[in-house]
Amino acid sequence: MIMDKLCKRAREISPVCVGLDTKIEYLPEFILEKPKSDAEKILEFNKRVIDALRDVCACFKVQIAYYEALGIEGMIAYSMTLKYIRQVGSIAIADIKRGDIAATGKMYAKGHFEGDFEADFVTVNGYMGIDSISPYFDYLKTGNKGIFILLKTSNKSSSDFQDIPIGKRPLYYHVAGKIDAWGKEYIQPCGYSSIGAVVGLTYPEEIACISEWMPNTFYLIPGYGAQGGTGEDLAQLFKDGICGVVNSSRAILTAHQKISEDETFVKHIRQAAIEMKEDICKWL
Amino acid sequence: MIMDKLCKRAREISPVCVGLDTKIEYLPEFILEKPKSDAEKILEFNKRVIDALRDVCACFKVQIAYYEALGIEGMIAYSMTLKYIRQVGSIAIADIKRGDIAATGKMYAKGHFEGDFEADFVTVNGYMGIDSISPYFDYLKTGNKGIFILLKTSNKSSSDFQDIPIGKRPLYYHVAGKIDAWGKEYIQPCGYSSIGAVVGLTYPEEIACISEWMPNTFYLIPGYGAQGGTGEDLAQLFKDGICGVVNSSRAILTAHQKISEDETFVKHIRQAAIEMKEDICKWL
Repeated sequence: MIMDKLCKRAREISPVCVGLDTKIEYLPEFILEKPKSDAEKILEFNKRVIDALRDVCACFKVQIAYYEALGIEGMIAYSMTLKYIRQVGSIAIADIKRGDIAATGKMYAKGHFEGDFEADFVTVNGYMGIDSISPYFDYLKTGNKGIFILLKTSNKSSSDFQDIPIGKRPLYYHVAGKIDAWGKEYIQPCGYSSIGAVVGLTYPEEIACISEWMPNTFYLIPGYGAQGGTGEDLAQLFKDGICGVVNSSRAILTAHQKISEDETFVKHIRQAAIEMKEDICKWL
Repeated sequence: MIMDKLCKRAREISPVCVGLDTKIEYLPEFILEKPKSDAEKILEFNKRVIDALRDVCACFKVQIAYYEALGIEGMIAYSMTLKYIRQVGSIAIADIKRGDIAATGKMYAKGHFEGDFEADFVTVNGYMGIDSISPYFDYLKTGNKGIFILLKTSNKSSSDFQDIPIGKRPLYYHVAGKIDAWGKEYIQPCGYSSIGAVVGLTYPEEIACISEWMPNTFYLIPGYGAQGGTGEDLAQLFKDGICGVVNSSRAILTAHQKISEDETFVKHIRQAAIEMKEDICKWL
């Protein structure tokens, strides 16, 4: 039961989700100097980060765009990164934000829940409606896979469409209603559905409000750190227990920069993740 | 000027866009029997289809999900298919429907406008607002790249969110207003912006209405054939001239099935594309 596992890890280890949005410029010199391709260097960096953080964070989120940007080599690094996260017993969230008609959605589901790009969870964009979500249901039924649907994203212009008022409520409220309804079928023993929601920490009041509408929804929460969210912003959402994982990418992956360029770099990365964990947990 | 080229080809050759949503079960026996991987077989099929149709259609749309479903091998076939389309002088639309925060969007733009996965146009999901669109602008400024933003998609459940009434107008009307405004900066000599819109042919009345709001927008129109759209449905939209390309995938790619399993299969595929062209052009 994948949501049980994620919820348990979030509560027993920490709600920290480490985003492997790895850029070549984040890498310490001793890796950059190796006679390898950029994608191979990124994979080595990721593996070292995963080893150093797997007992500090609940899960890793891999943003596929950073790997697509490197072409075929990048996709190999992406595949190997996901495999490594799962191999060490952690949880891999593939941040792919796919969304398409049902026939195409089936292909995305197959592509990201089986084979080279297999992940435990994927993020999905529901702008095209239930057709873009239902292709994942067969995998959810196994209990071993989950999805997070975009609800209220962390970026500034999420207001362009998501906040448009419809009657007295913003559009994202209507999306929340759908996510809650779709998720009812897939509630796992922990009480949360394997259909979760993405809500940005940059909008703490909206998050607290959303969570009252959706008691069975577990959250993937981007926007901590570099994007501006803090542990205090999470206090209201987590007041009855941890019900989400909080992603940070840049602030963790670059914690060694200007300090360490050798194999000790991961110490600084680990320290940054521990500080994030403490910043969140002190409010609980 | 990529939109000039697409518009010229749509008017001089035909507004047909052939969708390479290739599934292994579409392939004729003589390719299936070869000692190759599934992805290599799909690439061979695609190349033969491209050779047979490049003088019948304006462009090819490659749905990346079908390739992601095959893992790394699939991504190689995807890359080689795009390269081949561009090499023979046609236009490659990468149907990727990506959409993310600006930093991530930059990676998607790099990934799909440069390197292994370089296409002429990409499709983009704007649910996250301008941040998810603006990372493509630097490429649009060169004049050689274009995007199509999802507006009113062809699937049944596009109504779940896109049709939600906001005041007197549906949500997609508001999206149309944004696309029109963003596109003004990128109008090419043909009169159309290199920011186009995706509108499903399954909603012909909505399309006709949309086009009056957006005189500088060129359309990518899925939903012909297997999804139910007809040439007659396009008559109203094209009444002042061809202002879009019309995609068909399954109906064309499977035209040889149960008829031909040898090298002559492309004749039937070509015939299907010619019939589609005639069905559209007789209403002009």
